[in-house]
Amino acid sequence: MKKAACTSGREEIIMSFLSTDKPKPQILDVRITAQTKVFQIQSVDLQFANGQHRTYERLTPSRRPAVMVMALEGDNLLMVREYAVGSERYELGCVKGLIDAGETPEQAALRELQEEIGLGARRLEPLRMFYVNPSHMFGPMYAFVARDLYPSVLKGDEPEPLEIVRVPLARLDELIDDDQFGDARTLAALMLLQRAIGTAK
Amino acid sequence: MKKAACTSGREEIIMSFLSTDKPKPQILDVRITAQTKVFQIQSVDLQFANGQHRTYERLTPSRRPAVMVMALEGDNLLMVREYAVGSERYELGCVKGLIDAGETPEQAALRELQEEIGLGARRLEPLRMFYVNPSHMFGPMYAFVARDLYPSVLKGDEPEPLEIVRVPLARLDELIDDDQFGDARTLAALMLLQRAIGTAK
Repeated sequence: MKKAACTSGREEIIMSFLSTDKPKPQILDVRITAQTKVFQIQSVDLQFANGQHRTYERLTPSRRPAVMVMALEGDNLLMVREYAVGSERYELGCVKGLIDAGETPEQAALRELQEEIGLGARRLEPLRMFYVNPSHMFGPMYAFVARDLYPSVLKGDEPEPLEIVRVPLARLDELIDDDQFGDARTLAALMLLQRAIGTAK
Repeated sequence: MKKAACTSGREEIIMSFLSTDKPKPQILDVRITAQTKVFQIQSVDLQFANGQHRTYERLTPSRRPAVMVMALEGDNLLMVREYAVGSERYELGCVKGLIDAGETPEQAALRELQEEIGLGARRLEPLRMFYVNPSHMFGPMYAFVARDLYPSVLKGDEPEPLEIVRVPLARLDELIDDDQFGDARTLAALMLLQRAIGTAK
């Protein structure tokens, strides 16, 4: 996609959403300011094109991207309910997990499916890749649709078996419309699934 | 929404997505394991209902939720392009920012609109609240639709003026379908906007 018009120096009527004439800020320094078992925090010194300096913090860009799997069984989406320590409640979501070293996203998706809900899949279609939060981290997540499921259990590291929740595809709108539900990643994936299978509102 | 049926101890055909019979894990201890200017990391010791122990890490649940504003001007959505240190590139997104102490989400939305694109709004409608990542953090984000815009500039703390990008509502699908684009929050908000204004695919 190309620029269509520029109405001023600051505005443009376009969709060239990744390209911009602006040179990127120069990264002057990157330091690790904290390190725990799971998280590493970096402090990044930047010089913007106009000469302004800023120091921003970010979680170290993930070397391990993640997968999300929308498992379809007939007219149902198989979701899981798992405890989330961030919100301190059981959250409804899709099968998901980190990609292990040496794994492709497809392999990780099939492994997580077997670990989390004890099912293999004969068909796996990529749905989309998205990011968790480009401002402070950079976690790419690959979403897949899995079909033609069959029983196949792999042992995962979950502290308790995940509750499996069958959501009729015709009722996905109820989830999408409910403010009580709502990890942005799951919400995006549900609406992408609706677009892909043609059940969007 | 109520449970409709239980097919086994582990499965249920329902949508009671927040309620579960399972008692929540008990939080035995919460410790701060790292503290930087922006981030605080906690280590949380949990005992699950089945007796299993786990220690999870999380970013300290945000005391400052955030807002996202979908600014509509005629048949265009006004988006902004801002440098994201997580992805190290300019990202197209919507006006957004943290809610300041003492502010309502509405007040924060109107302030950010003036700071980031120099516009006030006579109409502000809530679109939805969603979460950034309940697994490791708990950042609620309130999305709004702003209409009846008028020039009104407030000084923000951006290092450089944000580039304003006018995206025709009829072309939102191009963004949604483009893998190169894609903060999950923005993606979810764009599809929610399409549902709300009736331009979904």
